[in-house]
Amino acid sequence: VQAVVLRGTDLVVDEVAEPTPGPGQVLLEVLACGICGSDLHCRHHAKAFTAVARRSGLSLFDFDADRDLVMGHEFSGRVVEVGPDVDAVRPGTLVAAHPVVKVDGRFRPVGYSNERPGAYSERVVVEATGVLPLPDGTNPHHAALTEPLAVGLHAVNESRAAELGSAVVIGCGPVGQAVIAALRLRGVPLVVAADFSPARRQLAGLMGADVVVDPREQPAVDAWRRAGGRGPTVVFEAVGVPGMLDLAVQAAPSRSQIVVVGVCMQSDTFEPTVAITKQLTLTFVLGWSAAEFADCLESIGSGRIDVSPLITGKVDLTGTPAAFDDLANPERHAKILVLPGGAT
Amino acid sequence: VQAVVLRGTDLVVDEVAEPTPGPGQVLLEVLACGICGSDLHCRHHAKAFTAVARRSGLSLFDFDADRDLVMGHEFSGRVVEVGPDVDAVRPGTLVAAHPVVKVDGRFRPVGYSNERPGAYSERVVVEATGVLPLPDGTNPHHAALTEPLAVGLHAVNESRAAELGSAVVIGCGPVGQAVIAALRLRGVPLVVAADFSPARRQLAGLMGADVVVDPREQPAVDAWRRAGGRGPTVVFEAVGVPGMLDLAVQAAPSRSQIVVVGVCMQSDTFEPTVAITKQLTLTFVLGWSAAEFADCLESIGSGRIDVSPLITGKVDLTGTPAAFDDLANPERHAKILVLPGGAT
Repeated sequence: VQAVVLRGTDLVVDEVAEPTPGPGQVLLEVLACGICGSDLHCRHHAKAFTAVARRSGLSLFDFDADRDLVMGHEFSGRVVEVGPDVDAVRPGTLVAAHPVVKVDGRFRPVGYSNERPGAYSERVVVEATGVLPLPDGTNPHHAALTEPLAVGLHAVNESRAAELGSAVVIGCGPVGQAVIAALRLRGVPLVVAADFSPARRQLAGLMGADVVVDPREQPAVDAWRRAGGRGPTVVFEAVGVPGMLDLAVQAAPSRSQIVVVGVCMQSDTFEPTVAITKQLTLTFVLGWSAAEFADCLESIGSGRIDVSPLITGKVDLTGTPAAFDDLANPERHAKILVLPGGAT
Repeated sequence: VQAVVLRGTDLVVDEVAEPTPGPGQVLLEVLACGICGSDLHCRHHAKAFTAVARRSGLSLFDFDADRDLVMGHEFSGRVVEVGPDVDAVRPGTLVAAHPVVKVDGRFRPVGYSNERPGAYSERVVVEATGVLPLPDGTNPHHAALTEPLAVGLHAVNESRAAELGSAVVIGCGPVGQAVIAALRLRGVPLVVAADFSPARRQLAGLMGADVVVDPREQPAVDAWRRAGGRGPTVVFEAVGVPGMLDLAVQAAPSRSQIVVVGVCMQSDTFEPTVAITKQLTLTFVLGWSAAEFADCLESIGSGRIDVSPLITGKVDLTGTPAAFDDLANPERHAKILVLPGGAT
């Protein structure tokens, strides 16, 4: 099959081995695969990804950075073929799917693995138990947003935002937008968002933020107070560059929770005394549960979450390397979908 | 009255104004006042204390470092005189007391204030509502440990240690010892502690740690695993020097909680990616509730917590400056009590 291969820091379209579904697995024709910020990072910091994964004892980024890698873990598809022992999934069904397969009884990533290629490819193999049929009438391109939305929903579910009644979202890239959508889905009354980019601020309003500010003009927590925010709140750090944690700690109201959902690949520095004086909680989140993934697919299908504003570009496999470069400009793009069948 | 005055970074015994109880307040003869690690820090970093308090919008360290300061906030005493509108407290009663008075309806600190001197003094004024009679037969010297024990109990109550069934305590200074005692009080089945100092390790065993290690010989989390620890746990960071947070993040098992109870006055650096990959929670704690304070006094009075091993020295006011210096040596001391009536 044709796929976009990460080779060193180059992305090249190349022919790779046809994936075949083993027992309990399903082969999908990829209809759409979103380009994730983690993939942008991974392109340039693959060795750092694997080093940190090794240090933390987890197998999420489970690959050899010196070998070819096919990324892509936010996708929808059509079932082409099912492996042995698969009864619940039928060929032809449109689906979203967890980017995993089972190896020796354990779920392992698809896309951040040399052996288990991801969905920047014409076809991908996934575990049948993680395959969810699209609700009737769901646009398969929208369904590719299920995974990144689930990341936002998980962050919100791990937070006290519903209990405290408000949230401040720092950074309105795709992760911040997913958090905003999830805060709306959970009915949090006051959602304040901040980003330097005018395009991202406009998008934050479309996704449901009540107040959106340029932090150069008005700090987010000041805007939250002006909008009636009182007491503790939840600050979502969705930027992921060094210094943001310190900024969040300095800005957060006393007894607040800071949820770190932006992945910062470098070391970061902050003042523990400020965090202690304010009695802050820092919650570091990653991933999502099966229930959260299903909840997001259902919300997309029913229109409770409208993801269409987030999709700012569509490319075919050949256009994917350039799309990676384009995503560096926050004014032009939020989420670009790779359509291996052609960008139409 | 005679008091130990912090003047710049010097501690001098000097005559200060006789404190007088206002409405709702009580004058105590100080029987014993523990020297707190925060006081040691404050002696050398007073301006940093007040700067961080100002930045975080709190009034805990509410003083002008260029003026005289009488510290001391861990004390027991005998009621000498009550102010107007005080009915519940009688002269002669032996008590422990919250180190606070009310100003304009708000509780404000005693000891970290130029206007509200603390208990390194013959007498101290406190709010009557924070005064608790000692349980019959309680040694007033032991009762002076109520406040630091309450800090440990609060840290444990804010943690998931009881739910998770185990804890790892990094650092066995007075704060770490209080955490160990509180973990035992709360019935946490497995308590592992680590410190470089042999004397502190011995003390940790006396206070209730099941396993105590020298981290140069065996990392604390390794010892926890060898003792049967599985899954997530709670790591208490009770050292408070730069680098400890990174160490705790690197060492903590996946999905663990790190409770930061050691105050680190400098900036600290760590790797957010590791915390994200492990989905850690960092909880920064400070202080205690009235219920926790009362619980600790009751536990000291009933003997459920034996604090006597923690008391490694007693000095009078004149001996206090030297005691501050002595506390730098972990082999010699845990808690030194200042006895303004004479060290006998």
